Amino acid sequence: MQRPLILVSNDDGITAPGIRLLIQLMKEIGEVVVVAPDSPQSGMGHAITIGNTLRLYETEIYEGVKAYKCSGTPADCVKLGKHYVLKSKTPDLVVSGINHGSNTSISVLYSGTMSAAVEGAIEGYPAIGFSLCDYDPEADFSHVEEYVIKIARNVLDMGLPKGIALNVNFPPKQNEKIKGVKICRQAHAKWQEEFDQRFDPNGRRYFWLAGNFVNYDRGEDNDEWAIANNYVSVVPIQYDLTAHHAISLLNEWSF
Amino acid sequence: MQRPLILVSNDDGITAPGIRLLIQLMKEIGEVVVVAPDSPQSGMGHAITIGNTLRLYETEIYEGVKAYKCSGTPADCVKLGKHYVLKSKTPDLVVSGINHGSNTSISVLYSGTMSAAVEGAIEGYPAIGFSLCDYDPEADFSHVEEYVIKIARNVLDMGLPKGIALNVNFPPKQNEKIKGVKICRQAHAKWQEEFDQRFDPNGRRYFWLAGNFVNYDRGEDNDEWAIANNYVSVVPIQYDLTAHHAISLLNEWSF
Repeated sequence: MQRPLILVSNDDGITAPGIRLLIQLMKEIGEVVVVAPDSPQSGMGHAITIGNTLRLYETEIYEGVKAYKCSGTPADCVKLGKHYVLKSKTPDLVVSGINHGSNTSISVLYSGTMSAAVEGAIEGYPAIGFSLCDYDPEADFSHVEEYVIKIARNVLDMGLPKGIALNVNFPPKQNEKIKGVKICRQAHAKWQEEFDQRFDPNGRRYFWLAGNFVNYDRGEDNDEWAIANNYVSVVPIQYDLTAHHAISLLNEWSF
Repeated sequence: MQRPLILVSNDDGITAPGIRLLIQLMKEIGEVVVVAPDSPQSGMGHAITIGNTLRLYETEIYEGVKAYKCSGTPADCVKLGKHYVLKSKTPDLVVSGINHGSNTSISVLYSGTMSAAVEGAIEGYPAIGFSLCDYDPEADFSHVEEYVIKIARNVLDMGLPKGIALNVNFPPKQNEKIKGVKICRQAHAKWQEEFDQRFDPNGRRYFWLAGNFVNYDRGEDNDEWAIANNYVSVVPIQYDLTAHHAISLLNEWSF
Protein backbone atom coordinates (compact mmCIF):
# COMPACT_ATOMS: atom_id res chain seq x y z
CA MET A 1 0.00 0.00 0.00
CA GLN A 2 1.24 3.47 -0.87
CA ARG A 3 2.15 5.69 2.03
CA PRO A 4 0.00 8.82 2.34
CA LEU A 5 1.41 12.06 0.94
CA ILE A 6 1.58 14.77 3.59
CA LEU A 7 2.21 18.47 2.90
CA VAL A 8 3.71 20.27 5.90
CA SER A 9 3.81 24.03 6.49
CA ASN A 10 3.82 26.48 9.40
CA ASP A 11 4.08 30.17 10.21
CA ASP A 12 7.13 30.30 12.48
CA GLY A 13 9.45 29.57 9.55
CA ILE A 14 10.99 26.43 8.15
CA THR A 15 13.70 26.11 10.82
CA ALA A 16 11.43 26.39 13.89
CA PRO A 17 11.57 23.52 16.41
CA GLY A 18 7.81 23.04 16.07
CA ILE A 19 7.90 22.22 12.37
CA ARG A 20 11.05 20.15 12.85
CA LEU A 21 9.13 17.90 15.25
CA LEU A 22 6.04 17.85 13.04
CA ILE A 23 8.11 16.71 10.05
CA GLN A 24 9.73 13.97 12.15
CA LEU A 25 6.32 12.72 13.32
CA MET A 26 4.73 12.84 9.87
CA LYS A 27 7.65 10.78 8.48
CA GLU A 28 6.42 7.95 10.70
CA ILE A 29 3.07 8.04 8.90
CA GLY A 30 3.77 8.96 5.29
CA GLU A 31 5.77 10.63 2.58
CA VAL A 32 6.47 14.21 3.60
CA VAL A 33 6.84 17.32 1.46
CA VAL A 34 7.57 20.62 3.20
CA VAL A 35 6.80 24.11 1.90
CA ALA A 36 7.23 26.64 4.68
CA PRO A 37 8.07 30.33 5.06
CA ASP A 38 11.74 31.39 5.03
CA SER A 39 11.02 33.81 7.91
CA PRO A 40 8.53 34.07 10.79
CA GLN A 41 4.99 34.89 9.62
CA SER A 42 3.11 34.94 12.91
CA GLY A 43 -0.04 37.05 12.94
CA MET A 44 -0.29 37.02 9.15
CA GLY A 45 -3.88 35.79 9.25
CA HIS A 46 -5.05 34.64 5.86
CA ALA A 47 -2.76 37.05 3.99
CA ILE A 48 -1.60 36.23 0.49
CA THR A 49 1.03 37.93 -1.65
CA ILE A 50 -0.63 39.72 -4.54
CA GLY A 51 1.29 42.98 -4.96
CA ASN A 52 4.71 41.39 -4.88
CA THR A 53 6.74 38.48 -6.23
CA LEU A 54 7.31 35.16 -4.50
CA ARG A 55 10.52 33.17 -4.18
CA LEU A 56 10.75 29.44 -3.58
CA TYR A 57 14.00 27.55 -2.98
CA GLU A 58 14.61 23.89 -2.36
CA THR A 59 16.53 23.23 0.84
CA GLU A 60 18.18 20.10 2.24
CA ILE A 61 17.86 20.89 5.92
CA TYR A 62 15.58 17.91 6.53
CA GLU A 63 17.29 14.65 5.61
CA GLY A 64 15.30 12.48 3.25
CA VAL A 65 12.54 15.08 2.94
CA LYS A 66 11.73 17.24 -0.07
CA ALA A 67 11.60 20.71 1.45
CA TYR A 68 11.15 24.22 0.07
CA LYS A 69 11.43 27.59 1.75
CA CYS A 70 9.14 30.32 0.48
CA SER A 71 9.34 34.10 0.78
CA GLY A 72 5.57 34.37 1.19
CA THR A 73 2.86 33.80 3.76
CA PRO A 74 1.64 30.40 5.02
CA ALA A 75 -1.30 30.56 2.59
CA ASP A 76 1.15 31.27 -0.26
CA CYS A 77 3.18 28.21 0.81
CA VAL A 78 0.22 25.88 0.45
CA LYS A 79 -0.77 27.41 -2.90
CA LEU A 80 2.80 27.09 -4.24
CA GLY A 81 3.08 23.63 -2.69
CA LYS A 82 0.04 22.50 -4.60
CA HIS A 83 0.78 24.14 -7.93
CA TYR A 84 4.54 24.13 -8.23
CA VAL A 85 5.89 21.42 -5.92
CA LEU A 86 3.22 18.69 -5.92
CA LYS A 87 1.82 19.55 -9.34
CA SER A 88 -0.44 16.65 -10.34
CA LYS A 89 0.01 14.78 -7.03
CA THR A 90 -2.75 15.25 -4.46
CA PRO A 91 -1.80 15.42 -0.79
CA ASP A 92 -3.75 13.08 1.50
CA LEU A 93 -3.22 15.48 4.36
CA VAL A 94 -2.06 19.06 4.94
CA VAL A 95 -0.62 19.81 8.38
CA SER A 96 0.62 23.11 9.75
CA GLY A 97 2.65 23.88 12.87
CA ILE A 98 3.41 22.93 15.47
CA ASN A 99 2.94 26.58 16.29
CA HIS A 100 4.94 28.13 19.11
CA GLY A 101 2.04 29.73 20.95
CA SER A 102 -1.70 29.40 21.33
CA ASN A 103 -4.21 29.60 18.48
CA THR A 104 -7.30 29.10 20.58
CA SER A 105 -10.41 31.26 20.46
CA ILE A 106 -10.22 34.52 18.48
CA SER A 107 -6.51 33.95 17.76
CA VAL A 108 -7.58 31.59 14.99
CA LEU A 109 -8.40 34.70 12.90
CA TYR A 110 -4.89 36.15 13.18
CA SER A 111 -3.11 32.82 12.92
CA GLY A 112 -0.77 32.11 10.03
CA THR A 113 -0.62 28.48 11.17
CA MET A 114 -4.35 28.06 10.71
CA SER A 115 -4.38 29.92 7.39
CA ALA A 116 -2.14 27.21 5.93
CA ALA A 117 -4.58 24.56 7.15
CA VAL A 118 -7.62 26.50 5.91
CA GLU A 119 -5.95 26.97 2.54
CA GLY A 120 -5.55 23.19 2.40
CA ALA A 121 -9.24 22.74 3.23
CA ILE A 122 -10.24 25.22 0.50
CA GLU A 123 -8.33 23.03 -1.95
CA GLY A 124 -10.36 20.07 -0.69
CA TYR A 125 -7.61 18.35 1.33
CA PRO A 126 -8.05 17.12 4.90
CA ALA A 127 -6.12 19.68 6.94
CA ILE A 128 -5.00 20.24 10.52
CA GLY A 129 -3.26 23.11 12.29
CA PHE A 130 -1.35 22.22 15.47
CA SER A 131 -0.35 24.72 18.15
CA LEU A 132 1.32 24.44 21.52
CA CYS A 133 0.00 26.94 24.08
CA ASP A 134 3.48 27.81 25.29
CA TYR A 135 5.36 30.92 24.08
CA ASP A 136 8.72 29.84 25.55
CA PRO A 137 11.19 29.44 22.62
CA GLU A 138 12.63 26.48 24.55
CA ALA A 139 9.18 24.96 25.06
CA ASP A 140 8.99 21.20 25.65
CA PHE A 141 6.90 19.51 22.92
CA SER A 142 7.46 15.91 24.05
CA HIS A 143 4.02 15.45 25.66
CA VAL A 144 2.16 16.22 22.41
CA GLU A 145 3.85 13.70 20.10
CA GLU A 146 1.43 10.82 20.62
CA TYR A 147 -1.54 13.15 20.09
CA VAL A 148 -0.18 14.64 16.87
CA ILE A 149 0.21 11.13 15.47
CA LYS A 150 -3.19 9.97 16.74
CA ILE A 151 -5.08 12.96 15.36
CA ALA A 152 -3.29 12.85 11.99
CA ARG A 153 -4.00 9.10 11.68
CA ASN A 154 -7.66 9.65 12.56
CA VAL A 155 -8.03 12.31 9.88
CA LEU A 156 -6.27 10.11 7.31
CA ASP A 157 -8.56 7.20 8.19
CA MET A 158 -11.85 9.05 8.56
CA GLY A 159 -11.45 12.13 6.34
CA LEU A 160 -13.05 15.43 7.21
CA PRO A 161 -16.36 16.91 6.08
CA LYS A 162 -16.03 19.29 3.13
CA GLY A 163 -15.13 22.85 4.05
CA ILE A 164 -13.69 22.02 7.45
CA ALA A 165 -10.19 22.07 8.96
CA LEU A 166 -9.18 21.13 12.49
CA ASN A 167 -7.69 23.66 14.87
CA VAL A 168 -5.74 21.60 17.43
CA ASN A 169 -4.20 23.23 20.50
CA PHE A 170 -2.07 21.50 23.12
CA PRO A 171 -1.68 22.59 26.75
CA PRO A 172 1.85 23.42 27.89
CA LYS A 173 3.82 20.54 29.43
CA GLN A 174 2.79 19.95 33.01
CA ASN A 175 3.66 17.45 35.72
CA GLU A 176 0.32 15.73 35.22
CA LYS A 177 -0.21 13.87 31.92
CA ILE A 178 -2.60 15.36 29.31
CA LYS A 179 -6.12 14.21 30.24
CA GLY A 180 -7.24 13.47 26.68
CA VAL A 181 -8.88 15.14 23.68
CA LYS A 182 -11.93 17.46 23.83
CA ILE A 183 -13.89 18.41 20.74
CA CYS A 184 -14.63 22.08 21.35
CA ARG A 185 -16.11 25.26 20.01
CA GLN A 186 -14.09 28.46 19.69
CA ALA A 187 -14.22 30.29 23.03
CA HIS A 188 -15.76 33.74 23.31
CA ALA A 189 -12.65 35.73 24.19
CA LYS A 190 -10.60 38.57 22.73
CA TRP A 191 -7.34 40.41 22.92
CA GLN A 192 -7.56 43.57 24.97
CA GLU A 193 -4.97 45.60 23.13
CA GLU A 194 -2.69 48.17 24.60
CA PHE A 195 -0.23 50.01 22.43
CA ASP A 196 3.21 50.55 23.86
CA GLN A 197 4.09 54.05 22.65
CA ARG A 198 7.78 54.91 22.20
CA PHE A 199 9.95 57.47 20.45
CA ASP A 200 12.73 56.65 18.00
CA PRO A 201 16.20 58.31 18.11
CA ASN A 202 14.79 61.05 15.85
CA GLY A 203 12.02 61.81 18.32
CA ARG A 204 9.28 60.34 16.14
CA ARG A 205 6.51 58.31 17.78
CA TYR A 206 6.04 54.60 17.10
CA PHE A 207 3.95 51.82 18.59
CA TRP A 208 4.26 48.18 19.57
CA LEU A 209 1.07 46.19 19.63
CA ALA A 210 0.71 44.65 23.09
CA GLY A 211 -2.17 43.54 25.25
CA ASN A 212 -3.86 40.87 27.27
CA PHE A 213 -6.08 37.98 26.38
CA VAL A 214 -9.47 38.28 28.07
CA ASN A 215 -11.74 35.24 28.29
CA TYR A 216 -15.46 36.06 28.61
CA ASP A 217 -16.56 32.47 28.20
CA ARG A 218 -17.91 30.58 31.23
CA GLY A 219 -18.69 27.39 29.30
CA GLU A 220 -16.85 24.08 29.57
CA ASP A 221 -17.25 23.13 25.90
CA ASN A 222 -14.71 25.58 24.46
CA ASP A 223 -11.02 25.50 23.60
CA GLU A 224 -9.94 27.86 26.38
CA TRP A 225 -11.53 25.65 29.00
CA ALA A 226 -9.92 22.54 27.50
CA ILE A 227 -6.41 24.03 27.55
CA ALA A 228 -6.86 25.44 31.07
CA ASN A 229 -7.88 21.95 32.20
CA ASN A 230 -4.97 20.13 30.52
CA TYR A 231 -6.92 18.66 27.59
CA VAL A 232 -6.01 18.78 23.92
CA SER A 233 -8.62 21.01 22.22
CA VAL A 234 -9.86 20.15 18.73
CA VAL A 235 -12.11 22.76 17.09
CA PRO A 236 -13.60 22.06 13.67
CA ILE A 237 -13.47 25.37 11.81
CA GLN A 238 -15.06 26.46 8.56
CA TYR A 239 -14.29 29.09 5.95
CA ASP A 240 -17.93 29.75 5.14
CA LEU A 241 -18.19 32.85 7.32
CA THR A 242 -21.91 33.37 6.65
CA ALA A 243 -23.86 34.02 9.85
CA HIS A 244 -26.83 32.02 8.54
CA HIS A 245 -28.91 32.77 11.65
CA ALA A 246 -28.78 36.51 10.86
CA ILE A 247 -30.17 36.26 7.33
CA SER A 248 -33.85 36.22 8.31
CA LEU A 249 -33.31 39.18 10.65
CA LEU A 250 -31.73 41.25 7.88
CA ASN A 251 -34.51 40.30 5.50
CA GLU A 252 -36.87 42.28 7.74
CA TRP A 253 -34.96 45.50 7.09
CA SER A 254 -36.16 47.85 4.39
CA PHE A 255 -33.60 48.91 1.83
CA MET B 1 -29.06 65.06 19.13
CA GLN B 2 -25.40 64.17 18.76
CA ARG B 3 -24.27 62.98 15.34
CA PRO B 4 -23.03 59.40 15.26
CA LEU B 5 -19.27 58.83 15.41
CA ILE B 6 -18.06 56.84 12.39
CA LEU B 7 -14.60 55.27 12.10
CA VAL B 8 -13.53 54.78 8.46
CA SER B 9 -10.77 52.52 7.18
CA ASN B 10 -9.92 50.50 4.07
CA ASP B 11 -7.20 48.34 2.54
CA ASP B 12 -6.40 50.23 -0.66
CA GLY B 13 -4.72 53.02 1.27
CA ILE B 14 -5.88 56.38 2.58
CA THR B 15 -5.72 58.16 -0.80
CA ALA B 16 -7.78 55.63 -2.81
CA PRO B 17 -10.87 56.97 -4.61
CA GLY B 18 -13.04 54.39 -2.82
CA ILE B 19 -12.26 55.67 0.68
CA ARG B 20 -12.46 59.25 -0.54
CA LEU B 21 -16.08 58.66 -1.58
CA LEU B 22 -16.88 56.69 1.59
CA ILE B 23 -15.60 59.57 3.75
CA GLN B 24 -17.69 62.07 1.76
CA LEU B 25 -20.83 59.91 2.19
CA MET B 26 -20.26 59.26 5.90
CA LYS B 27 -19.87 63.03 6.50
CA GLU B 28 -23.53 63.35 5.46
CA ILE B 29 -24.48 61.01 8.30
CA GLY B 30 -22.12 61.70 11.15
CA GLU B 31 -18.79 62.78 12.58
CA VAL B 32 -16.02 60.98 10.70
CA VAL B 33 -12.62 59.82 11.92
CA VAL B 34 -10.31 58.09 9.44
CA VAL B 35 -7.51 55.66 10.24
CA ALA B 36 -6.33 53.95 7.08
CA PRO B 37 -3.16 52.35 5.72
CA ASP B 38 -0.48 54.58 4.20
CA SER B 39 -0.02 52.03 1.37
CA PRO B 40 -2.10 49.37 -0.37
CA GLN B 41 -2.84 46.35 1.84
CA SER B 42 -4.96 44.23 -0.47
CA GLY B 43 -4.92 40.52 0.27
CA MET B 44 -3.67 41.07 3.81
CA GLY B 45 -6.49 38.97 5.27
CA HIS B 46 -6.74 39.39 9.02
CA ALA B 47 -3.01 40.08 9.41
CA ILE B 48 -1.77 42.16 12.34
CA THR B 49 1.67 43.61 12.98
CA ILE B 50 3.28 41.78 15.88
CA GLY B 51 6.97 41.44 14.97
CA ASN B 52 7.42 45.03 13.92
CA THR B 53 6.67 48.60 14.97
CA LEU B 54 3.75 50.71 13.80
CA ARG B 55 3.70 54.34 12.70
CA LEU B 56 0.67 56.61 12.78
CA TYR B 57 0.63 60.16 11.40
CA GLU B 58 -2.15 62.71 11.32
CA THR B 59 -2.86 64.00 7.82
CA GLU B 60 -4.98 66.87 6.53
CA ILE B 61 -5.88 65.43 3.13
CA TYR B 62 -9.58 65.33 3.98
CA GLU B 63 -10.92 68.78 4.83
CA GLY B 64 -12.75 68.97 8.10
CA VAL B 65 -12.03 65.32 8.92
CA LYS B 66 -9.65 63.98 11.55
CA ALA B 67 -7.55 61.52 9.54
CA TYR B 68 -4.53 59.35 10.27
CA LYS B 69 -2.38 57.21 8.01
CA CYS B 70 -0.94 54.06 9.51
CA SER B 71 2.00 51.90 8.44
CA GLY B 72 0.16 48.70 9.39
CA THR B 73 -2.63 46.47 8.16
CA PRO B 74 -6.37 47.31 8.11
CA ALA B 75 -6.83 45.37 11.38
CA ASP B 76 -3.98 47.41 12.93
CA CYS B 77 -5.73 50.62 11.79
CA VAL B 78 -8.93 49.75 13.66
CA LYS B 79 -7.00 48.72 16.77
CA LEU B 80 -4.94 51.94 16.75
CA GLY B 81 -8.07 53.91 15.88
CA LYS B 82 -9.79 52.60 18.96
CA HIS B 83 -6.92 52.83 21.41
CA TYR B 84 -4.90 55.83 20.30
CA VAL B 85 -7.19 58.05 18.20
CA LEU B 86 -10.67 57.60 19.71
CA LYS B 87 -9.44 56.65 23.18
CA SER B 88 -12.49 56.80 25.46
CA LYS B 89 -14.93 57.62 22.64
CA THR B 90 -16.91 54.72 21.22
CA PRO B 91 -17.65 54.68 17.51
CA ASP B 92 -21.30 54.11 16.60
CA LEU B 93 -20.21 52.52 13.33
CA VAL B 94 -17.06 51.19 11.69
CA VAL B 95 -17.01 51.21 7.88
CA SER B 96 -14.31 49.94 5.56
CA GLY B 97 -13.80 50.48 1.83
CA ILE B 98 -15.13 51.15 -0.63
CA ASN B 99 -12.82 48.44 -1.91
CA HIS B 100 -11.62 48.54 -5.50
CA GLY B 101 -12.54 44.97 -6.40
CA SER B 102 -14.82 42.18 -5.30
CA ASN B 103 -14.89 40.65 -1.83
CA THR B 104 -17.62 38.14 -2.52
CA SER B 105 -17.47 34.44 -1.68
CA ILE B 106 -14.10 33.04 -0.57
CA SER B 107 -12.40 36.40 -1.17
CA VAL B 108 -13.78 37.51 2.20
CA LEU B 109 -10.99 35.41 3.81
CA TYR B 110 -8.19 37.23 2.00
CA SER B 111 -9.79 40.64 2.21
CA GLY B 112 -8.10 43.44 4.09
CA THR B 113 -11.28 45.51 3.70
CA MET B 114 -13.33 42.94 5.56
CA SER B 115 -10.66 42.43 8.25
CA ALA B 116 -11.10 46.09 9.28
CA ALA B 117 -14.87 45.54 9.56
CA VAL B 118 -14.44 42.24 11.44
CA GLU B 119 -11.98 43.91 13.81
CA GLY B 120 -14.67 46.48 14.51
CA ALA B 121 -17.19 43.72 15.20
CA ILE B 122 -14.75 41.99 17.57
CA GLU B 123 -14.60 45.26 19.53
CA GLY B 124 -18.39 45.19 19.70
CA TYR B 125 -19.08 47.99 17.16
CA PRO B 126 -21.59 47.71 14.30
CA ALA B 127 -19.37 47.28 11.25
CA ILE B 128 -19.68 47.14 7.47
CA GLY B 129 -17.21 46.45 4.68
CA PHE B 130 -18.11 47.87 1.25
CA SER B 131 -16.62 46.63 -2.03
CA LEU B 132 -17.24 47.46 -5.68
CA CYS B 133 -16.89 44.45 -7.98
CA ASP B 134 -14.88 46.42 -10.52
CA TYR B 135 -11.09 46.27 -10.70
CA ASP B 136 -10.75 49.24 -13.04
CA PRO B 137 -8.74 51.96 -11.21
CA GLU B 138 -11.02 54.49 -12.95
CA ALA B 139 -14.15 52.61 -11.88
CA ASP B 140 -17.39 54.57 -11.61
CA PHE B 141 -18.77 54.49 -8.04
CA SER B 142 -21.71 56.86 -8.59
CA HIS B 143 -24.39 54.14 -8.70
CA VAL B 144 -23.56 52.86 -5.20
CA GLU B 145 -23.81 56.12 -3.26
CA GLU B 146 -27.49 55.85 -2.28
CA TYR B 147 -26.97 52.24 -1.15
CA VAL B 148 -23.94 53.03 0.99
CA ILE B 149 -25.96 55.70 2.79
CA LYS B 150 -29.06 53.50 3.12
CA ILE B 151 -27.18 50.50 4.49
CA ALA B 152 -25.12 52.61 6.90
CA ARG B 153 -28.26 54.34 8.19
CA ASN B 154 -30.02 51.02 8.60
CA VAL B 155 -27.14 49.64 10.68
CA LEU B 156 -27.01 52.80 12.79
CA ASP B 157 -30.77 52.59 13.40
CA MET B 158 -31.13 48.85 13.91
CA GLY B 159 -27.71 47.77 15.20
CA LEU B 160 -26.28 44.36 14.35
CA PRO B 161 -26.38 41.14 16.34
CA LYS B 162 -23.28 40.52 18.45
CA GLY B 163 -20.38 38.92 16.61
CA ILE B 164 -21.55 39.90 13.13
CA ALA B 165 -20.30 42.31 10.45
CA LEU B 166 -21.82 42.99 7.04
CA ASN B 167 -19.96 42.17 3.83
CA VAL B 168 -21.52 44.43 1.20
CA ASN B 169 -20.60 44.07 -2.48
CA PHE B 170 -21.83 46.27 -5.33
CA PRO B 171 -22.13 45.24 -8.96
CA PRO B 172 -20.11 47.27 -11.47
CA LYS B 173 -21.91 50.24 -13.03
CA GLN B 174 -24.22 49.10 -15.80
CA ASN B 175 -26.74 50.75 -18.11
CA GLU B 176 -29.57 49.26 -16.09
CA LYS B 177 -30.08 50.60 -12.53
CA ILE B 178 -29.16 48.35 -9.58
CA LYS B 179 -32.18 46.12 -8.90
CA GLY B 180 -32.04 46.36 -5.11
CA VAL B 181 -30.46 44.66 -2.08
CA LYS B 182 -30.27 40.88 -1.57
CA ILE B 183 -29.36 39.35 1.80
CA CYS B 184 -27.10 36.46 0.82
CA ARG B 185 -24.89 33.67 1.98
CA GLN B 186 -21.25 33.40 0.91
CA ALA B 187 -21.12 31.57 -2.44
CA HIS B 188 -19.31 28.27 -2.77
CA ALA B 189 -16.49 29.31 -5.09
CA LYS B 190 -12.73 29.52 -5.06
CA TRP B 191 -9.68 30.91 -6.77
CA GLN B 192 -8.08 28.46 -9.15
CA GLU B 193 -4.51 29.63 -8.82
CA GLU B 194 -1.90 29.60 -11.47
CA PHE B 195 1.58 30.83 -10.76
CA ASP B 196 3.22 32.91 -13.43
CA GLN B 197 6.85 31.76 -13.33
CA ARG B 198 9.56 34.20 -14.45
CA PHE B 199 13.29 34.71 -14.12
CA ASP B 200 14.95 37.84 -12.76
CA PRO B 201 17.96 39.53 -14.45
CA ASN B 202 20.22 37.24 -12.39
CA GLY B 203 18.49 34.16 -13.75
CA ARG B 204 16.76 33.30 -10.49
CA ARG B 205 13.19 32.03 -10.58
CA TYR B 206 10.30 34.00 -9.08
CA PHE B 207 6.52 33.76 -9.15
CA TRP B 208 3.49 35.98 -9.46
CA LEU B 209 0.28 34.68 -7.97
CA ALA B 210 -2.37 34.66 -10.67
CA GLY B 211 -5.49 32.67 -11.36
CA ASN B 212 -9.16 32.54 -12.10
CA PHE B 213 -12.21 32.70 -9.93
CA VAL B 214 -14.33 29.55 -10.25
CA ASN B 215 -17.94 29.55 -9.06
CA TYR B 216 -19.31 26.09 -8.14
CA ASP B 217 -22.51 27.48 -6.67
CA ARG B 218 -25.78 26.97 -8.57
CA GLY B 219 -27.95 28.62 -5.91
CA GLU B 220 -29.68 31.99 -6.21
CA ASP B 221 -29.30 32.94 -2.56
CA ASN B 222 -25.57 33.72 -2.65
CA ASP B 223 -23.44 36.81 -3.21
CA GLU B 224 -22.07 35.72 -6.59
CA TRP B 225 -25.58 35.31 -7.97
CA ALA B 226 -26.62 38.70 -6.60
CA ILE B 227 -23.70 40.52 -8.23
CA ALA B 228 -24.12 38.67 -11.52
CA ASN B 229 -27.78 39.76 -11.53
CA ASN B 230 -27.12 43.42 -10.71
CA TYR B 231 -28.17 43.35 -7.05
CA VAL B 232 -26.25 44.66 -4.06
CA SER B 233 -25.22 41.63 -1.99
CA VAL B 234 -25.23 41.84 1.81
CA VAL B 235 -23.73 38.84 3.63
CA PRO B 236 -23.76 38.76 7.43
CA ILE B 237 -20.43 37.23 8.44
CA GLN B 238 -19.20 35.97 11.77
CA TYR B 239 -15.80 35.50 13.37
CA ASP B 240 -16.81 32.44 15.33
CA LEU B 241 -15.34 29.96 12.85
CA THR B 242 -16.57 26.88 14.71
CA ALA B 243 -18.24 24.36 12.41
CA HIS B 244 -20.82 23.50 15.06
CA HIS B 245 -22.43 20.83 12.88
CA ALA B 246 -19.17 18.84 12.83
CA ILE B 247 -18.76 18.58 16.61
CA SER B 248 -21.02 15.56 17.09
CA LEU B 249 -19.30 13.77 14.20
CA LEU B 250 -15.86 14.29 15.72
CA ASN B 251 -17.12 13.15 19.10
CA GLU B 252 -17.62 9.70 17.58
CA TRP B 253 -13.89 9.39 16.84
CA SER B 254 -11.68 7.55 19.30
CA PHE B 255 -8.59 9.40 20.47
